[in-house]
Amino acid sequence: MESMARPLDALNKARSKRVLVELKNGRQYVGNLISFDIHINTVLENAEERIDGELKKQLGTVFIRGDTITIISPQ
Amino acid sequence: MESMARPLDALNKARSKRVLVELKNGRQYVGNLISFDIHINTVLENAEERIDGELKKQLGTVFIRGDTITIISPQ
Amino acid sequence: MESMARPLDALNKARSKRVLVELKNGRQYVGNLISFDIHINTVLENAEERIDGELKKQLGTVFIRGDTITIISPQ
Amino acid sequence: MESMARPLDALNKARSKRVLVELKNGRQYVGNLISFDIHINTVLENAEERIDGELKKQLGTVFIRGDTITIISPQ
Amino acid sequence: MESMARPLDALNKARSKRVLVELKNGRQYVGNLISFDIHINTVLENAEERIDGELKKQLGTVFIRGDTITIISPQ
Amino acid sequence: MESMARPLDALNKARSKRVLVELKNGRQYVGNLISFDIHINTVLENAEERIDGELKKQLGTVFIRGDTITIISPQ
Amino acid sequence: MESMARPLDALNKARSKRVLVELKNGRQYVGNLISFDIHINTVLENAEERIDGELKKQLGTVFIRGDTITIISPQ
Repeated sequence: MESMARPLDALNKARSKRVLVELKNGRQYVGNLISFDIHINTVLENAEERIDGELKKQLGTVFIRGDTITIISPQ
Repeated sequence: MESMARPLDALNKARSKRVLVELKNGRQYVGNLISFDIHINTVLENAEERIDGELKKQLGTVFIRGDTITIISPQ
Repeated sequence: MESMARPLDALNKARSKRVLVELKNGRQYVGNLISFDIHINTVLENAEERIDGELKKQLGTVFIRGDTITIISPQ
Repeated sequence: MESMARPLDALNKARSKRVLVELKNGRQYVGNLISFDIHINTVLENAEERIDGELKKQLGTVFIRGDTITIISPQ
Repeated sequence: MESMARPLDALNKARSKRVLVELKNGRQYVGNLISFDIHINTVLENAEERIDGELKKQLGTVFIRGDTITIISPQ
Repeated sequence: MESMARPLDALNKARSKRVLVELKNGRQYVGNLISFDIHINTVLENAEERIDGELKKQLGTVFIRGDTITIISPQ
Repeated sequence: MESMARPLDALNKARSKRVLVELKNGRQYVGNLISFDIHINTVLENAEERIDGELKKQLGTVFIRGDTITIISPQ
């Protein structure tokens, strides 16, 4: 558990893995977690945007501003 | 009471226990409290998402950005 | 009046007493005020959630994130 | 005018007097201004809550979180 | 132009003059600009509140919390 | 490109020129850019307010609080 | 991967390339990424505004305030 003592440890453990990112406006992005910072600014690759779980568009790389994010969950 | 002098003490006491987290957008997450920080960024494991108390989906691990949280309550 | 020179003095005076906490989203929590900090993060015990004054559920302990609070009023 | 050079001077001058406080959510509180701080966290005594100018309930002491306030006006 | 190099210079120039202040919630206040600070917390005297340009009520002195303001315009 | 290395360089280049400023609430202001600061607090002169592109009113000088702005575009 | 260790590295890599910027209010801007800062304040050139993917207007240069942005994605 030691390696999970802080919330960002959970994001570190998910690096390069597939994650779901949900935004305050209801949008969802699924992609490989490339990087994040203390503001939770996040970059995904091979990303796709979903609305209500349905694929809306392929985005490739996407930078997501941290303050718009509600949750990040490894898939 | 000494051990509950600050609000984060209540979260410390709930570590690894089952908690309910409610968000500003009405979403609810129930899971085991793994970690949190001073921004109240929070990580749950064995988490499930609920809407109006009904199970919506199983999430496994979920990182919740602190500024989107309204309450955290041990179950 | 000296002991009430700053707003947090009023919260200090209410410690362990029953208070009403209202949130920006309209939710109300009534419970015993256990702790708070400068962000107004607040912990209540023997808490209950109310909507429009009606009991919605018993919560036991609840941590309320400060930035979601509008008012705190001793009962 | 010297004594009104900064905005908080106007609040200092209103201490212990009756003031109207309006919130972003439209709620109004009228009470005696006991204290405030640089975040405009404010405590009123003998306070009453009003909606559209009509008395809704008597509150006694009320702590109002500063970031939810739009205006404070001496009555 | 030197005396208008920074935005607050425009407010300084309007001190004691009649200004219109508009809020994020659509409310308008017209009054004499007495003081402001770096957060744009603002105090007006001989103020009146307007909705859609129509006089709603006379307020005398009003303290307006800066983060709720969209624009300030000398009349 | 060197002179455009930082976003505020683009605003510096637009000083005294006619710019469009759009706010989060949908309002638009067109005027001569007089000054701005790091919060993007902005002062326009010979300004006019528009709604959906239509002239709503002449404002002369207007101070716009930075956190309410979405975009600034030279005309 | 070293060159992508932090989220802003992804924006650096997109400099002068065509990017899509989406705002919290649903607006979309497509243009060449000229500059950005740690607040994600961003300047585009040869920019166009879109609503629901449809061209709404040509803007030339546009400064976008960082806190209004949800995502930035290279095209």
